[in-house]
Amino acid sequence: MNYRIEKDTLGEVRVPADKLWGAQTERSRNNFKIGSPASMPKEIIYGFAYLKKGAAYANHELGVLSQEKRDYIAQVCDEILEGKLDDQFPLVIWQTGSGTQSNMNVNEVIANRAHQLAGKTIGEGEKTLQPNDDVNKSQSSNDTFPTGMHIACYKKIVEVTLPGLRQLQKALAAKSKEMADVVKIGRTHLMDATPLTLGQEFSGYAAQLAYGIRAIENTLPHLAELALGGTAVGTGLNTPRDYDVTVTRYIAEFTGLPFVTAPNKFEALASHDAIVETHGALKQVAVSLNKIANDIRLLASGPRSGIGEIIIPANEPGSSIMPGKVNPTQSEALTMVCAQVMGNDVAITVGGMQGHFELNVFKPVMAANFLQSAQLLGDAALSFDIHCVSGIEPNRPRIKELLDNSLMLVTALNTKIGYYKAAEIANAAHRNGTTLKEEAVRLGYVSAEDFDQWVRPEDMTGPLA
Amino acid sequence: MNYRIEKDTLGEVRVPADKLWGAQTERSRNNFKIGSPASMPKEIIYGFAYLKKGAAYANHELGVLSQEKRDYIAQVCDEILEGKLDDQFPLVIWQTGSGTQSNMNVNEVIANRAHQLAGKTIGEGEKTLQPNDDVNKSQSSNDTFPTGMHIACYKKIVEVTLPGLRQLQKALAAKSKEMADVVKIGRTHLMDATPLTLGQEFSGYAAQLAYGIRAIENTLPHLAELALGGTAVGTGLNTPRDYDVTVTRYIAEFTGLPFVTAPNKFEALASHDAIVETHGALKQVAVSLNKIANDIRLLASGPRSGIGEIIIPANEPGSSIMPGKVNPTQSEALTMVCAQVMGNDVAITVGGMQGHFELNVFKPVMAANFLQSAQLLGDAALSFDIHCVSGIEPNRPRIKELLDNSLMLVTALNTKIGYYKAAEIANAAHRNGTTLKEEAVRLGYVSAEDFDQWVRPEDMTGPLA
Amino acid sequence: MNYRIEKDTLGEVRVPADKLWGAQTERSRNNFKIGSPASMPKEIIYGFAYLKKGAAYANHELGVLSQEKRDYIAQVCDEILEGKLDDQFPLVIWQTGSGTQSNMNVNEVIANRAHQLAGKTIGEGEKTLQPNDDVNKSQSSNDTFPTGMHIACYKKIVEVTLPGLRQLQKALAAKSKEMADVVKIGRTHLMDATPLTLGQEFSGYAAQLAYGIRAIENTLPHLAELALGGTAVGTGLNTPRDYDVTVTRYIAEFTGLPFVTAPNKFEALASHDAIVETHGALKQVAVSLNKIANDIRLLASGPRSGIGEIIIPANEPGSSIMPGKVNPTQSEALTMVCAQVMGNDVAITVGGMQGHFELNVFKPVMAANFLQSAQLLGDAALSFDIHCVSGIEPNRPRIKELLDNSLMLVTALNTKIGYYKAAEIANAAHRNGTTLKEEAVRLGYVSAEDFDQWVRPEDMTGPLA
Amino acid sequence: MNYRIEKDTLGEVRVPADKLWGAQTERSRNNFKIGSPASMPKEIIYGFAYLKKGAAYANHELGVLSQEKRDYIAQVCDEILEGKLDDQFPLVIWQTGSGTQSNMNVNEVIANRAHQLAGKTIGEGEKTLQPNDDVNKSQSSNDTFPTGMHIACYKKIVEVTLPGLRQLQKALAAKSKEMADVVKIGRTHLMDATPLTLGQEFSGYAAQLAYGIRAIENTLPHLAELALGGTAVGTGLNTPRDYDVTVTRYIAEFTGLPFVTAPNKFEALASHDAIVETHGALKQVAVSLNKIANDIRLLASGPRSGIGEIIIPANEPGSSIMPGKVNPTQSEALTMVCAQVMGNDVAITVGGMQGHFELNVFKPVMAANFLQSAQLLGDAALSFDIHCVSGIEPNRPRIKELLDNSLMLVTALNTKIGYYKAAEIANAAHRNGTTLKEEAVRLGYVSAEDFDQWVRPEDMTGPLA
Repeated sequence: MNYRIEKDTLGEVRVPADKLWGAQTERSRNNFKIGSPASMPKEIIYGFAYLKKGAAYANHELGVLSQEKRDYIAQVCDEILEGKLDDQFPLVIWQTGSGTQSNMNVNEVIANRAHQLAGKTIGEGEKTLQPNDDVNKSQSSNDTFPTGMHIACYKKIVEVTLPGLRQLQKALAAKSKEMADVVKIGRTHLMDATPLTLGQEFSGYAAQLAYGIRAIENTLPHLAELALGGTAVGTGLNTPRDYDVTVTRYIAEFTGLPFVTAPNKFEALASHDAIVETHGALKQVAVSLNKIANDIRLLASGPRSGIGEIIIPANEPGSSIMPGKVNPTQSEALTMVCAQVMGNDVAITVGGMQGHFELNVFKPVMAANFLQSAQLLGDAALSFDIHCVSGIEPNRPRIKELLDNSLMLVTALNTKIGYYKAAEIANAAHRNGTTLKEEAVRLGYVSAEDFDQWVRPEDMTGPLA
Repeated sequence: MNYRIEKDTLGEVRVPADKLWGAQTERSRNNFKIGSPASMPKEIIYGFAYLKKGAAYANHELGVLSQEKRDYIAQVCDEILEGKLDDQFPLVIWQTGSGTQSNMNVNEVIANRAHQLAGKTIGEGEKTLQPNDDVNKSQSSNDTFPTGMHIACYKKIVEVTLPGLRQLQKALAAKSKEMADVVKIGRTHLMDATPLTLGQEFSGYAAQLAYGIRAIENTLPHLAELALGGTAVGTGLNTPRDYDVTVTRYIAEFTGLPFVTAPNKFEALASHDAIVETHGALKQVAVSLNKIANDIRLLASGPRSGIGEIIIPANEPGSSIMPGKVNPTQSEALTMVCAQVMGNDVAITVGGMQGHFELNVFKPVMAANFLQSAQLLGDAALSFDIHCVSGIEPNRPRIKELLDNSLMLVTALNTKIGYYKAAEIANAAHRNGTTLKEEAVRLGYVSAEDFDQWVRPEDMTGPLA
Repeated sequence: MNYRIEKDTLGEVRVPADKLWGAQTERSRNNFKIGSPASMPKEIIYGFAYLKKGAAYANHELGVLSQEKRDYIAQVCDEILEGKLDDQFPLVIWQTGSGTQSNMNVNEVIANRAHQLAGKTIGEGEKTLQPNDDVNKSQSSNDTFPTGMHIACYKKIVEVTLPGLRQLQKALAAKSKEMADVVKIGRTHLMDATPLTLGQEFSGYAAQLAYGIRAIENTLPHLAELALGGTAVGTGLNTPRDYDVTVTRYIAEFTGLPFVTAPNKFEALASHDAIVETHGALKQVAVSLNKIANDIRLLASGPRSGIGEIIIPANEPGSSIMPGKVNPTQSEALTMVCAQVMGNDVAITVGGMQGHFELNVFKPVMAANFLQSAQLLGDAALSFDIHCVSGIEPNRPRIKELLDNSLMLVTALNTKIGYYKAAEIANAAHRNGTTLKEEAVRLGYVSAEDFDQWVRPEDMTGPLA
Repeated sequence: MNYRIEKDTLGEVRVPADKLWGAQTERSRNNFKIGSPASMPKEIIYGFAYLKKGAAYANHELGVLSQEKRDYIAQVCDEILEGKLDDQFPLVIWQTGSGTQSNMNVNEVIANRAHQLAGKTIGEGEKTLQPNDDVNKSQSSNDTFPTGMHIACYKKIVEVTLPGLRQLQKALAAKSKEMADVVKIGRTHLMDATPLTLGQEFSGYAAQLAYGIRAIENTLPHLAELALGGTAVGTGLNTPRDYDVTVTRYIAEFTGLPFVTAPNKFEALASHDAIVETHGALKQVAVSLNKIANDIRLLASGPRSGIGEIIIPANEPGSSIMPGKVNPTQSEALTMVCAQVMGNDVAITVGGMQGHFELNVFKPVMAANFLQSAQLLGDAALSFDIHCVSGIEPNRPRIKELLDNSLMLVTALNTKIGYYKAAEIANAAHRNGTTLKEEAVRLGYVSAEDFDQWVRPEDMTGPLA
């Protein structure tokens, strides 16, 4: 392979000639051969592109960067955002915990690519841009990486997670309305209980997701705060006056998102509680979705030896050995996502709790876990809607059969004959394999006419009139 | 021991004669010998007392319970709340997952105690109150237990957790102000970095807690929703019209807390995402506190071989073998609490994700973990304030010594001579064990006068003017 | 209340006159008002009693403690082990992370109680024993607390956890044998699958637990290693030659358990990976038990609208509102325990990962979580056996009904007519609500005679002959 | 794009013409657009290649597959193992929880590729191999996927994890020996304590890893058990006699690893406790490594305002803003890996606890998390050794300076003058900023000569002679 020589403050490094990165990127590539290459999420690189462009504009506006340099930086950032330079970011999550090396990767790529755009050859002639002094001007890894994280995470939440969850929430609410009249047996402790409608059952799922969406939204103001302007330790050393609000204004403009400068930069560098906070809400949603997906596969179980009250779409052959088998595969994918999100929550907790002094050095692992959870939840919610929820149909004959047999309809008699006599009826019917009515009459507690009037499942799905 | 005979729908049971509980409590006591006796948190029993009293008032107002019965129930509930009947609740967390047996424990104790208050002997004469038909009227375990949980958890948050956290937050903010002028070395990656003030450092801690308190507060509206009125499966079967809002109004009045009836009772029985949600915020606070407590013990480390920039109160002899040793014991207690809260968060997650159909059956374990976390965080925050934070003093001579020696003051030269030359100066001073100024002058990059004017730690703790 | 004055190296402290503890215990009691009083597990106090007695014997044997002092110490330790002094240990888990204060609590109680046994009044006359110089001789909190932990944890595992798990494992294996001939429908993805026997299904549960028990046993050699003899930082400073092996020999003798001295005392003080390791195995068992308990409640679901293939004992009335309801309460208690153990595993992980240098200061929280898990798993396994597993009966009519209807018996035709034709038969039967045989014959793929010979559930529960 | 038509039992599907996969793979690709494409780990595909080849050989040996078919299957499997067909496996982790679709992906690719090898065009002429009837013969997804998982996970542990950990363990042990004579201050509670050698300190790290390696090894026998031969529900339906041991023998031969057939196939399909078990040991190692890496960065902290007792290699410039800064980046990468492994442990726990009846349907998420942890730990351990541990040097002047100043050397006087007088000396020296010797003499407790003889740090690093 062909190489060129790049330099940093530790000395010279050989870099592949066809790559735009510089010495520090190459050092990191060699020093951290941990897991798959280039595992640092692209979303963070794009977050950096927004912030480097914003910083260039702010530095120019505040009089510390020439217009020419600003425009070179902006031009390369736009190329990054168009995905044209994706193969120039080879670093891994498992590098320095401040993400310094990815910050320098971006700085180096911008500087070298600007040199090309200026019509020059990398490594020759006066540098068009200095990675540290120009591209990184008024910045430090310590405030850029958390800013890149927040941009990436916020975008993912509003562009992927929330749309997916909202669509699924609406689908569940629509199903709830659609099945509002389907009276069915309830189940508590997995045991037969008093009736409710299938619509009521699904309304609980829709409510869970509505709470979860609100919980995520509650966390967004914290996530919208950007650390940029804090530089090395939060003091804003080497930044021009008003830099933090200026640069954040540009980032908000470029992304179209309501970012604000963090009121306390020390908090914003030394801890990542905003990541912990929003991911806590994602974990809550995972808890909800696990329950919902599990219920749906239990309701659809069968076709002949399960509960079978609903029919879900048959999307794929379910078995490589059992012909004709159809499985609740969307529930399975979704619950696996939930397990992942619950695990990621612990990884983020462990990272978030361990910072020292002015810097948390678990930034990449926290960001990567967050982005994975946010992507998977959004995608899986959408998939679950499209390939499962929207196609759910009640299995009315089966529902009626189970309802008519239920012993828990006896509860309607509590207010007429008391809990103890009602229990005696239910126990007798269970023991004898008979119906509640037969036993109620035989025991002399209720007449047949009263029974028919009092024990009507369709009257048992709401409060007493 | 003396026994009396109590009955339930399964038959007769021998109960210790001096106890107020009945057959179902006794069955549970015998069937669940798991861990220490009486582990069901008392706070939940008190939550039940509020709701049983509220239910009695609502049932009377809505015309389904006599005033006499209402008053008997209310009188016993008041005794429970005064702690007079604490030894009548022997059940454990590890019982049925709906908490049915604790609901019945309360029902039985109220019925039997009311019988005594009516001047009768338990087990003799007509029952003053029926446990199921009177005390439990318009209720089910499935809506009472989550209501008791929410009352207990909400009270604990507003009476213990938030007061403790707010006091600690204020103490940290006060310390931040008090030490606003103490310029010190910053540390990132645990390595020397540019300076900041001790006040700025502590402002980050205060900010973390302020975010955490807001995060908890954001979750309270969900936690304020009560399931009561849902009865068995959420439909409100066997309740009078307007029961849910009426009973919640009474509970709000009796507790003085802003409880509202849950708009969707199916969600409120089948899932406990409100518990998951608030505890997620508690976990976030644990993440913050772990960072803060850890920083403080590192800052106080020494006395001669550590960092030693602050002095914390000497509360106890620190070692049984090393004379004169004083340890950061409050940090240790607090970080142990944080570890517990992080673990509890997983227990709650695992419980919350597993409900089936109309009922989550991990109620007691979720409530117990929540209450433990909420109590410990509140208590530990208070203890950390009183016995540590409020007594923190800066160790000014040590701080000055470290600051004056720091190589990272070189960062102030970046904007004057560029990053690369500044690095050369720092590296030379590190290699030669010299000062920055010596090397700056020796290398000819900066004059002694310029150095003194440009490199002033006290000017490096805020943005460029 | 009456007080007496006690002293330590920080000065005087007022202690309740009727208590045996001294100044350091009282300081800790006042400085750590976190959670319930006296939460430090009694098992650890008893572990200390074994080790203090062992240390007294070793110190005497090695010539650094008089026989009289040895015997006083031993006598009080025996009183502690008989439970006579339980109310003399008021400290909480949430104290110093080394457990120093509980070590001093034991030292102080032993010294003061010995003074009483010597016929003197506490606080008067020459001290019979010095807490630090005599009772704590050749010891430090840093090696005593982990030793107390290991003694307590090891005892709990072999006296509670393993006996409970082994009994449950045997019960499951016995049920497996007992139901070896009950052919039933299998279920994969919760959907009907090819048949197996109920005995085979339970054999999987028995196998899970057998692996879990082996996993716990694999960890015991590490847990059997005692830190004692390491003193302050692991070097064994201030201990006589051969002290570590000598004292461990006495502890092994007094407990009857195979304790050995830790070969590396630095590891034994600075980390508690042995606790992490054994608890990891407990967590594995929790994973297994959650699956088993969940399966059993699903198999028992009904009585009329669930799966209903097995009948579990009816131990309690299941509902306060639904008469005649019986619930799988033992499964619920057990799965709640599993959730707790999974949470505790994270608490222990978080504690274990955070030690600094020569000492891990999360000892009490790690020990308390371990002991809770070990107790709950043992107790719950026993309870699950006695009140559930041993009473399980197959519901043969229901099992036969489901088996006969199953479409997945078609799998037996794969090797005769190929997967695709078999699928066609199953799909047709599913679509038309018919039997496999009807469709097989109608489609002309199999004759009625061949069908009867080839599709026999009882032949489908093992490999081809 | 060009397509061809493929069929399965649900009907026709259009598949990209240049791809070897068939209908079921294509359905899965379209139905599970969750996260990045092709996220199913390649290691599992390779695990499948070993098992499909093994199955072909076993089927042939047992007389149910022709030699020609066996050889076609084996030939394609070899191509897969050479990495030639990597782009033929587009499916994601988040599919059906049994991994059926990846099993079918392999079956389809083998069948179509064999058709090409037979000189034919895909989709034309009689099929050379049937995916279900030939390639999947005597198999089900339910036993193949866990077999593929175990092969992949076992290989990763023995090829990546254990070699990395063993190399790091040896490096730590070697450093321990190398620095055996460097007496330094000990630290407990982060506070100065009695001395030990740097070698002793590192011996604790080496011991931790040795225990961790043994813990992993203890789990390998369970992981070596293969489910293959269980087919759909564990009964081995549609397999020839002796198939399980035969196929496992071939897999052991082809991989060179000691695989055995699982004695209980029901356990091996319905639960994945072996994955939980081995990953529990990986989590223990993460706990150890977090402590070790954290200690090392604290020991290396500075260069002028930290502890600074060791010097670690300077691998990269540490800051984009602070010139000359060098950071403990390897510790950071490693502790981020540890956080990930701890999170993954919870994901695996949540997956493992949730199977239903005859099948756990969290297989892909469990396997993916396991493989990530195993890879990252092995890689990071290696990186930590090469780029950090092996280059560690003691900073002798700094170590001596701190040791000479230490107040905790006073502990050596305990056995001479008692704990209380020793404490008085230490407290006085601390208060007055003097030396222990000055105060000892001033207080009249020890003569200068005795002090010099008794208080010698180098004599304090082992038991009394």
